[in-house]
Amino acid sequence: MRNIKLTIEYDGKRYSGWQRLGNTDKTIQGKIENIIFQMTEEKIEIIGSGRTDAGTHARGQVANFKTNSTMSLAEMQAFFIQYLPRDIVIKKIEEVPERFHARYNCTGKKYSYYIWTADTPSAFDYHYVYQYPEKLDMKKMQTACDKLVGTHDFIGFSALKKSKKSTTRTIKELSMVREGDKLHFTFVGDGFLYKMVRILMGTILEIGAGTRDLSSIDDIFENKVRQDAGETVPSQGLFLDEAYYN
Amino acid sequence: MRNIKLTIEYDGKRYSGWQRLGNTDKTIQGKIENIIFQMTEEKIEIIGSGRTDAGTHARGQVANFKTNSTMSLAEMQAFFIQYLPRDIVIKKIEEVPERFHARYNCTGKKYSYYIWTADTPSAFDYHYVYQYPEKLDMKKMQTACDKLVGTHDFIGFSALKKSKKSTTRTIKELSMVREGDKLHFTFVGDGFLYKMVRILMGTILEIGAGTRDLSSIDDIFENKVRQDAGETVPSQGLFLDEAYYN
Repeated sequence: MRNIKLTIEYDGKRYSGWQRLGNTDKTIQGKIENIIFQMTEEKIEIIGSGRTDAGTHARGQVANFKTNSTMSLAEMQAFFIQYLPRDIVIKKIEEVPERFHARYNCTGKKYSYYIWTADTPSAFDYHYVYQYPEKLDMKKMQTACDKLVGTHDFIGFSALKKSKKSTTRTIKELSMVREGDKLHFTFVGDGFLYKMVRILMGTILEIGAGTRDLSSIDDIFENKVRQDAGETVPSQGLFLDEAYYN
Repeated sequence: MRNIKLTIEYDGKRYSGWQRLGNTDKTIQGKIENIIFQMTEEKIEIIGSGRTDAGTHARGQVANFKTNSTMSLAEMQAFFIQYLPRDIVIKKIEEVPERFHARYNCTGKKYSYYIWTADTPSAFDYHYVYQYPEKLDMKKMQTACDKLVGTHDFIGFSALKKSKKSTTRTIKELSMVREGDKLHFTFVGDGFLYKMVRILMGTILEIGAGTRDLSSIDDIFENKVRQDAGETVPSQGLFLDEAYYN
């Protein structure tokens, strides 16, 4: 069988997330599987690099699926672009070795999160940013970002109840750049636990707003208590930019 | 009476344009007038710097209205932000001399137009760009922009049938910048005739695609025949960025 790798961009605002739930049509996975069925008449399950939550966006989600179809890659991509809704776009399509698995082989991910800092909201960006009303101390937030980089047990910054598997992860980069009225945070790491980016972001914002001490980061690493960390910021400001493979 | 000046940002994709048509609620002007009625109980007509077409966006439309209301400007802005749909935002509100008139006093405008140049469409930007499928000669388009700058009779580049008033306008700036997968064109001038930006844009694109000669610009200035100019590109790629006043 052929193994096909997809690089997918989607606007998550109309969807209940990546992962298909039964036969619902409101997930990204479900929409793509439906198109593959129309294209190949095969009932195929596609494997994503990981899930994204309802409302979260992607510029570079990766997925793969196995097929007996003899269509060319160019024909498949044209079919996807024609029949998928306009807010889901297959940016790239490649044939990969049969052992390639989008989830198991993923070696890291890059996410963006956008904070809207102007006094008035944006007429264009309300589905793509989080409007945070507090005045933010940029220096403190930069220090918080620097403290979070590295290898730590991030269970206290996740929505996982317990985990049999390791919850140690390495954040390689956590940067903050002003882009007009937006603050753009970039998270690069070898993996992120459930809701980890959104809880890290909430924690950084509370430090910036002065309602939380920088030292709380060390406490959460030590005590591993999710309730000690910041709020889970809304999914709408989150973008999965890239999934990495060797 | 007080005279209030508004600077307005709107996403035009859900609207049939700026200008109220009877009692329809699908225009930007109509939406704002409805909110003013809720706020002041006055049936007021607001005056825009000019119309924008269905689907066209604005980052800096300007309008004014007269009122007897004693509300503070901050209260008015908060009311607008709370009750207008999220895709219409009053960015700025000012009290101006009674003689200020957003249309008559406007001394110029700035527009942007965005061309999407990637092979695959964008999952995010389809309401805000024009995906133009041809390969474009950047040098020829730059020369076309340069030729259009200056004072000319632009009637051949407009959708006006005839005009008793002068159709001579001055384009002060017409620039082209690549921004990732987009080409961003900026038009600055003392005024633009009906559909003039979209027809100029269509003409520049045809020159870039090689289906039209550069010299046709001179012919259209001389012969003033709209049919000799390029297509009217879609309204969705057009943004009114600014309206200028002395």
